[in-house]
Amino acid sequence: MVIELNHDRFVELMNTQAEIGKCGTRALNRLALTDEDREIRDWFVAQLEDAGLEVRIDEIGNIFGRRDGSDPDAAPILIGSHLDSQPNGGIFDGALGVISALEFIKMLNDREIVTRHPIEIVNWTNEEGSRFEVPMMASGVWSGAFELNEIYELTDAEGKRVEDELNRIGYKGAVPAEPSEPYEAYVELHVEQGPRLESTGAQVGVVTGVVGFHWGAARFIGEADHAGPTPMHHRGDALVAAADFITGLRRVPGTVGEKTVGTVGVIDGSPNSINVIPGEVTVTWDTRDPQDETVDVAVDRVKQEAEAAANREGVAVELSDRMQAPSVEFAPRVIDTIAECASELGYESQHMLSGAGHDATYVSTVCDTAMVFAVSEDGKSHSPAEYTSWEDCYAAANTLASTALSLSQSD
Amino acid sequence: MVIELNHDRFVELMNTQAEIGKCGTRALNRLALTDEDREIRDWFVAQLEDAGLEVRIDEIGNIFGRRDGSDPDAAPILIGSHLDSQPNGGIFDGALGVISALEFIKMLNDREIVTRHPIEIVNWTNEEGSRFEVPMMASGVWSGAFELNEIYELTDAEGKRVEDELNRIGYKGAVPAEPSEPYEAYVELHVEQGPRLESTGAQVGVVTGVVGFHWGAARFIGEADHAGPTPMHHRGDALVAAADFITGLRRVPGTVGEKTVGTVGVIDGSPNSINVIPGEVTVTWDTRDPQDETVDVAVDRVKQEAEAAANREGVAVELSDRMQAPSVEFAPRVIDTIAECASELGYESQHMLSGAGHDATYVSTVCDTAMVFAVSEDGKSHSPAEYTSWEDCYAAANTLASTALSLSQSD
Repeated sequence: MVIELNHDRFVELMNTQAEIGKCGTRALNRLALTDEDREIRDWFVAQLEDAGLEVRIDEIGNIFGRRDGSDPDAAPILIGSHLDSQPNGGIFDGALGVISALEFIKMLNDREIVTRHPIEIVNWTNEEGSRFEVPMMASGVWSGAFELNEIYELTDAEGKRVEDELNRIGYKGAVPAEPSEPYEAYVELHVEQGPRLESTGAQVGVVTGVVGFHWGAARFIGEADHAGPTPMHHRGDALVAAADFITGLRRVPGTVGEKTVGTVGVIDGSPNSINVIPGEVTVTWDTRDPQDETVDVAVDRVKQEAEAAANREGVAVELSDRMQAPSVEFAPRVIDTIAECASELGYESQHMLSGAGHDATYVSTVCDTAMVFAVSEDGKSHSPAEYTSWEDCYAAANTLASTALSLSQSD
Repeated sequence: MVIELNHDRFVELMNTQAEIGKCGTRALNRLALTDEDREIRDWFVAQLEDAGLEVRIDEIGNIFGRRDGSDPDAAPILIGSHLDSQPNGGIFDGALGVISALEFIKMLNDREIVTRHPIEIVNWTNEEGSRFEVPMMASGVWSGAFELNEIYELTDAEGKRVEDELNRIGYKGAVPAEPSEPYEAYVELHVEQGPRLESTGAQVGVVTGVVGFHWGAARFIGEADHAGPTPMHHRGDALVAAADFITGLRRVPGTVGEKTVGTVGVIDGSPNSINVIPGEVTVTWDTRDPQDETVDVAVDRVKQEAEAAANREGVAVELSDRMQAPSVEFAPRVIDTIAECASELGYESQHMLSGAGHDATYVSTVCDTAMVFAVSEDGKSHSPAEYTSWEDCYAAANTLASTALSLSQSD
């Protein structure tokens, strides 16, 4: 059972959301729980109310809008994604999934379609994990992966607490941050953020699961010293050791697995002064692979590289694990529905894994879950270079809508 | 003609100055033109006035105190250094030279010694170049190396201008920032900030010149992208290129010259997010050698390393020169006086070059100049590990005082 959305209204909604927190052409600074996040939330809640939905905000700021179904005993179908962005991020990441869900509700209203199951639309708080460094933070709380009170205590770089920032922007709701009832299914549309779908030539990605990942940090501790009079052999340069580690980590994936990736995203040096040998440097790592065992192997190798780099420069290193998530397999029933809808709509689809974590990762522990991917041109994301044509956005949105509609009419 | 200072008063003055801007045991945060800098300046001016000196403050905030001599036609002997510090820097760097000069004035007063030449004591503004990134900033203006109006426009990381900060702390003086008359000589005592003097076993360094140096920056421009779904071969990681450059630069000195040094002190990555491939990374370099031609060779090699690193990762790089200074040879007359005074005082001395730039670098273009070095234990500086025993401080201070006294009585 397929449905097609209002293309022009959908594009207009996408463009409207992209104005809030805009920081350049197709660029957003809409970090979680900032003033820009409040502005997009206010707009989104108004849209939900305008569409006749019953709005709930939970204790971690997740926003739900509910459209009742005909069967009072039927569990809701949940659809959505996130409206927060990376610093100087793209306009599709997250927003595409939320706006597609919103346009779907509007189309159901236009056509006065009554579904058997209720439909709920959701905007998850702080998916990006950029300002508060736990990604998929609030879907994780809602799904039981994190303790609400521990998450409240997380702070940003300026020491501001999650709970205080929720209160500040007026989005610490009263509803418990947990499933209020059993859910029938969760479907999330997201841009792929990688080049695989584009390389296959297919228009719609049918996501069967998510790779596992591990995050950690290495703190190299040498000795700060004057860059002039200190002879080279007399140094313990923390930045040289960190650099040696980074180039070592660059080689790890190529020796561990075909689909393994490894990245150093953050580097912070101290005292970071042009004529001082860096005394302390902290770098992070992010390693991923579809196989959990391969992630483990990669992390071991990464840690060996850190120790070796520290030894070569004669400095100390402290390693810490920060976060990890095992790989996820989505629900065949939802996967198959997505593939069938894409086919019925006339789109070529491709089954694939997600290389990035998504809110669906955690929600999959609560109910049957799968994802629809839209093409990311040249695989770019987390930057203003992120781009998906409106044609590809629309195809993925129609697939999401049709999947949700099919599931919402099921017995 | 030698003189010995009041040891206990000298140590007390050193300890007193170390309380202003204190941020830990033997640690200072007293960056140029901050509130802490104002506080040490207020204390210093009060000390000068208390010692009966005539105080002048020039347009770039240099503080001079003058003690007249007996011969109205004799040119002044200038002694001093700087009271600003690096972030989390040591208590000896700069302050030792100023406090030794101050104690020397007090001792001249105690003994009612009348010199033939006037003696002037100076505190130079922003020697460190940490907050406003031109080191030896105000001695450079005073000596004619920099234009006052250009220096006024320099900004710190928060965009605050030098001139505004001078006004804010009340130290933009009315006296022109230039020599008000011919100067007879400049003598500066400073800690070595390197391990060479200690390794010779001598107690006092007789500094015959300063190595040349070159500063620049390399900005690597790759593509920010999601750290999960972006395959390794699809990346242009600016941080990997920067790291490759840093490890390359670590090898340059060993292939260029015995006394060549090279350092990357600053690294700034963007967007600096744990799950984003860094799109832009800027690093600085600092290369030094006693021979100017060797500095040139080293800088060429450094730039080659940057280009090679960028090519290997498939990213772009932009190179920029920031600052350079040729090597300096100090005046034999002042050098010889320092060596003679050290010998007469019973200290073993060692002729040596300075690996670091000092205010004396610029002042040497105005008048006969040389420096006295105190031992830096284990060569540490620009960190709280900086240490010189009071015995070594006192020996160097007596050498400075005796040199200034000798010069001040000369025909």
